Amino acid sequence: MSTTPPFDVRLLDGLMEQAGIDALLVTSKHNVQYLLGGHRYFFFDYMDALGVSRYLPVVLYVRGDPAAATYVGAATEAWQLDNDPVWVDTVELCSWGSVDAVEAAVAHLRKACPSGVTVGVEQAFLPADAYLRLAQERDLAFVEAFGVLERLRARKSDAELAIVERASVAIVESMKAVFAAHGAGTTKRELAAALHSEQALRGLTFEYCLVSMGSSHNRGASDQAWAPGEVLCLDSGGNLGGYIGDLARMAVLGPPDAELQDLLAEVELTQQAARRAIRAGTIGAEIFAVAQDELRSHPHRGSTSFVAHGMGLISHEAPRLTSTGPVPYPADDGPLPLEPGMVLSVETTLLHERRGFIKLEDTVVVTEGGYRAFGDGARGWNIAGR
Amino acid sequence: MSTTPPFDVRLLDGLMEQAGIDALLVTSKHNVQYLLGGHRYFFFDYMDALGVSRYLPVVLYVRGDPAAATYVGAATEAWQLDNDPVWVDTVELCSWGSVDAVEAAVAHLRKACPSGVTVGVEQAFLPADAYLRLAQERDLAFVEAFGVLERLRARKSDAELAIVERASVAIVESMKAVFAAHGAGTTKRELAAALHSEQALRGLTFEYCLVSMGSSHNRGASDQAWAPGEVLCLDSGGNLGGYIGDLARMAVLGPPDAELQDLLAEVELTQQAARRAIRAGTIGAEIFAVAQDELRSHPHRGSTSFVAHGMGLISHEAPRLTSTGPVPYPADDGPLPLEPGMVLSVETTLLHERRGFIKLEDTVVVTEGGYRAFGDGARGWNIAGR
Repeated sequence: MSTTPPFDVRLLDGLMEQAGIDALLVTSKHNVQYLLGGHRYFFFDYMDALGVSRYLPVVLYVRGDPAAATYVGAATEAWQLDNDPVWVDTVELCSWGSVDAVEAAVAHLRKACPSGVTVGVEQAFLPADAYLRLAQERDLAFVEAFGVLERLRARKSDAELAIVERASVAIVESMKAVFAAHGAGTTKRELAAALHSEQALRGLTFEYCLVSMGSSHNRGASDQAWAPGEVLCLDSGGNLGGYIGDLARMAVLGPPDAELQDLLAEVELTQQAARRAIRAGTIGAEIFAVAQDELRSHPHRGSTSFVAHGMGLISHEAPRLTSTGPVPYPADDGPLPLEPGMVLSVETTLLHERRGFIKLEDTVVVTEGGYRAFGDGARGWNIAGR
Repeated sequence: MSTTPPFDVRLLDGLMEQAGIDALLVTSKHNVQYLLGGHRYFFFDYMDALGVSRYLPVVLYVRGDPAAATYVGAATEAWQLDNDPVWVDTVELCSWGSVDAVEAAVAHLRKACPSGVTVGVEQAFLPADAYLRLAQERDLAFVEAFGVLERLRARKSDAELAIVERASVAIVESMKAVFAAHGAGTTKRELAAALHSEQALRGLTFEYCLVSMGSSHNRGASDQAWAPGEVLCLDSGGNLGGYIGDLARMAVLGPPDAELQDLLAEVELTQQAARRAIRAGTIGAEIFAVAQDELRSHPHRGSTSFVAHGMGLISHEAPRLTSTGPVPYPADDGPLPLEPGMVLSVETTLLHERRGFIKLEDTVVVTEGGYRAFGDGARGWNIAGR
């Protein structure tokens, strides 16, 4: 068992100090997985419900004291940890629900910390009953730790990047297999199910498939069937060891006509313009400016949208390059320079009234001199059945 | 769009009245899916994280007033609901997080209810930030609704049973395919991954695979490789439309010797004795009594454990037939008669020091005259590679 934390301890301690946080009680599956270097209890990977309560993994981290780090897991979790140990010194596998899980974590916090400390929690991933139990600890103050944890994860290590690359390649290979094996009459439901299977065959945990076909801009699965000449867009996420592959590729049933070639070229030119702007030190908002500049000369600029955002353990995370979207993000990294190891999702979508939903979504990692694209194949028109 | 609730409105209203609940704000994915007759937003089927908060679907149900039922979903959820509408009259797709979701639901509650009402919530599935927002509504009282919702789901309709049967059959067919395709040298990791793929091919959402091999009782995936003469136990859950298939089957690498035949026969005799006791009207605890009675004559009774419990949308739900396990269940249906349409998981496990982990887990539905078993094949020794 390694007792070296798999994350940057100095960075985390600094972020906690800045936020006035003395200790973290982390309860989201993604941040627990991150802090434990990949451990996610397989039995509750998908579901949370357990008996009359729910599974709630808890990582306790005390600022400046990695040796005090504690993991509280389920009473049935030992098999996995015996096979694949985690770095923390103290592992207590005792919980049958959310309240006893945080009770156990607080008992460990009491051993490491004086009273009166400030504890960072993830309010959106801390159940109400667990929160109410914590609130009984009158001498502790609880504050939101979302920003600290997201910032900690923003730059990916080489090991993390290798996983993101494998996930991205597997997503695109899965899409190519689906395009090759289907044709006229296949429904959107069948295509989404086929993509799920292809991802599982490649070791991915399927997360979702957005699918659109023909002139429709509807991206949900349905009984709509593929007809000759129609486009198909697959936009899908699946994860490998917690890291998400999320890309979009286009297919057409039969050879693409000149109009389709031109439409996808508009999307591709926007993508490539934005990608060329990506390198360490570029101001995040500059990517948007370059894309908008490219779009200025495009015939369909009025129906084209561009977005870029950080990704990794969740599908939208730091760096947050825009605050202009519909989501009121408290953090806006648009004015900040990109850093090496940040992973960006770059997306251009053209909504055409007759030809439908035309989109490319790419995953790129910021490097010192530019970027590397993961799973960068199949970016043109894939022809069904080939 | 049907406007008929897919559940028993009179039963729900009665359970709410008994519990003193005027309205429900339901936020667990499984209960939202149940109350909406199967709708579960595909984009957040696996993950919850969304931007700086999380996805939180909310169903509002007002006692005695199904027409006031409201669904609050994500701002991006319309595609799926356009394709597959739900029964509730009011659908508001506006949320980007947990707090705005409950705010929207409360606004609808205010239209339907006078002030001062008691609202049932699921504390283990209500995030702390959403709870704190609800708690600002000073005239509302919030109480736990877990028991009401679990009781509502306990008897399955014919339509639900058809799904449980399909899921159970698919689990067993997936296991048979894995046993047939693997042999000497295959690792537990590879077997768990293969079962995942086989389930996806059959349209299931894989949830977990407990896997044990040889003399070991460890049930987590690892690099342990299958050797001739060794047993393999697969115990896996996967869901179809939210309903879980969860069964365990045994395989051996090569022909089973006499000792293995005898050991599995002990397990099988316990299972069949318990199953024969199952029919509408049987007192739940009687199933345990019958199994213990059968075990009395077994050579390995000291290392054999028996359990039976309700299942359906989650892997342990009502009827709760025992309160003697490690989980402190508040509800104990052991003294109560079984009802037709209840689904039980029946499990016998024999832990042998040399021969390993030997288990059968069956899914049975209670009928007036007895029971029906779902996915009841492959209950003997499956021989690898055949």
